[in-house]
Amino acid sequence: MKLPKKVEIIEVCPRDGFQNIKTPISTETKIEIINKLVDCGFNWIEATSFINPKAIPQMADAAEVLKNAKEKHADKVGFIALALNLIGAQRAIEAGADAITYVVSASEKHNFENTRRTIDQSINEFIQVCKIKENVKVRFSIATALECPFAGTIDPSRVVQLVEAGLAVGADEVVLADTTGTANPVQIEALLSILIFRFPKVPFILHIHDTQGMGLANVLTALDFGINRFETAAAGLGGCPYAPGAAGNIATEDLVNMMHKMGIATGIDYANIIDVARYIAKKLEIPLVGHMARLTSCQASN
Amino acid sequence: MKLPKKVEIIEVCPRDGFQNIKTPISTETKIEIINKLVDCGFNWIEATSFINPKAIPQMADAAEVLKNAKEKHADKVGFIALALNLIGAQRAIEAGADAITYVVSASEKHNFENTRRTIDQSINEFIQVCKIKENVKVRFSIATALECPFAGTIDPSRVVQLVEAGLAVGADEVVLADTTGTANPVQIEALLSILIFRFPKVPFILHIHDTQGMGLANVLTALDFGINRFETAAAGLGGCPYAPGAAGNIATEDLVNMMHKMGIATGIDYANIIDVARYIAKKLEIPLVGHMARLTSCQASN
Repeated sequence: MKLPKKVEIIEVCPRDGFQNIKTPISTETKIEIINKLVDCGFNWIEATSFINPKAIPQMADAAEVLKNAKEKHADKVGFIALALNLIGAQRAIEAGADAITYVVSASEKHNFENTRRTIDQSINEFIQVCKIKENVKVRFSIATALECPFAGTIDPSRVVQLVEAGLAVGADEVVLADTTGTANPVQIEALLSILIFRFPKVPFILHIHDTQGMGLANVLTALDFGINRFETAAAGLGGCPYAPGAAGNIATEDLVNMMHKMGIATGIDYANIIDVARYIAKKLEIPLVGHMARLTSCQASN
Repeated sequence: MKLPKKVEIIEVCPRDGFQNIKTPISTETKIEIINKLVDCGFNWIEATSFINPKAIPQMADAAEVLKNAKEKHADKVGFIALALNLIGAQRAIEAGADAITYVVSASEKHNFENTRRTIDQSINEFIQVCKIKENVKVRFSIATALECPFAGTIDPSRVVQLVEAGLAVGADEVVLADTTGTANPVQIEALLSILIFRFPKVPFILHIHDTQGMGLANVLTALDFGINRFETAAAGLGGCPYAPGAAGNIATEDLVNMMHKMGIATGIDYANIIDVARYIAKKLEIPLVGHMARLTSCQASN
């Protein structure tokens, strides 16, 4: 087992989590939760998504949420905003995003469901995004990088092509997303083997959902390939509006617990993130799905 | 990643699962659930525990459950019964057990809580068990082999001593139990590294609880050390009456899913075990805790 001394956990609950909750969440509550997450010690928080509000009404207040977060916490945390096209990226930059997650799917059908564009069209628009990015970090995020609800298992060579395309036009980082949460450790190994061989200097980030309970096993596999940045969501929120069957992300508090127990630093205050996860579930009136947040203090300490 | 072509999953729900349910389960229901589990394709099922019924009233019908299971399914499945002492082992053998799980804890305090004996006393009684075992397979099961609710992290050298002691007097197999479900992959690696170096020919079995969500990551780590037998419980039931904070075992259906997805055979009918897990939860009126059993068919197939 090859272990890093430290991993970076990027908190995506305010974007991936909130976008999958049908009941409207007030802007005030979103900001309140972001404030609490900031106090946990994250370097990066994905705060919102600049997506068409007709498609995802929950994200209609993206600019307000992002501006507020930036005003309060710009000195402590970098804020990421998701975009699916040039207009979204422009709005994110105008609102002060420190980084943009630009999503392209490895599956043509999922890309169309998610963005109403072909993969080629999405990549062409990404070229424009890279031209206007200035000081904003551009993260090229490959959705359905392992499994697609429509196309099934994704050939790693398809992901290699996309990584090449994204890097060629200016991506600063590449995110690999198991959008459905159905990939297994063998697939993670197969994908990372080829990607690290082909792109040894690219700092890949893994975004893993935990639909089938294999999330932490997948993280463990990725650590062996030198991956040390992961996207998770407090309280295990998340999903994909255009990936039927996708469940939540790995609960941040579960990953923090496993890393700390394994002697790997995260920079996150465990007691604090547990409290925030429980607060989120209570405030949004959703069940606690993460393992750690459900435990009593007696169970957690053993 | 070093993967076997096949793993064997030993189903422990009727023992580890039922013993932790306070509401009495009728003998009829226990037998009905065992019948359903047999149909899933297990080679071995831990059917019950010959423990003092004053301590665990749920197990008072151990002999009836075991005899019934043997009468119906002796040609298809081996039935295991748990014992904590000589009297329990004698009762198990009389009732027709094919194998006995004899439990000794690596932690002195947990052993006393669990058996009212010192570890030395437990081992002395195990010598007697091995003398009367005849054709019954004797499994030496080391509880709290990694973490103890009272003593904290267990030194692997303590487990080495116990394995030596168990093998010296006639144990046929050795089970390593993460009784509290709080061990992490680094601990699994540390323990298995030393055990496989010291006992390269011993077929260790892993019994893992999933209290903190690290269960499948721990299995993945164990596979790399050549471990290919695991004890799990349908519907994720289980715990330990004398280990405060312990939650359920890995849900059998979650492990079957991960193994099949990774291309590893289990011999278990996945659709069938999912149905049985859901049936158990409904019949016993307990929440579904496993990942797979909670999913819709849409989520499970992705």
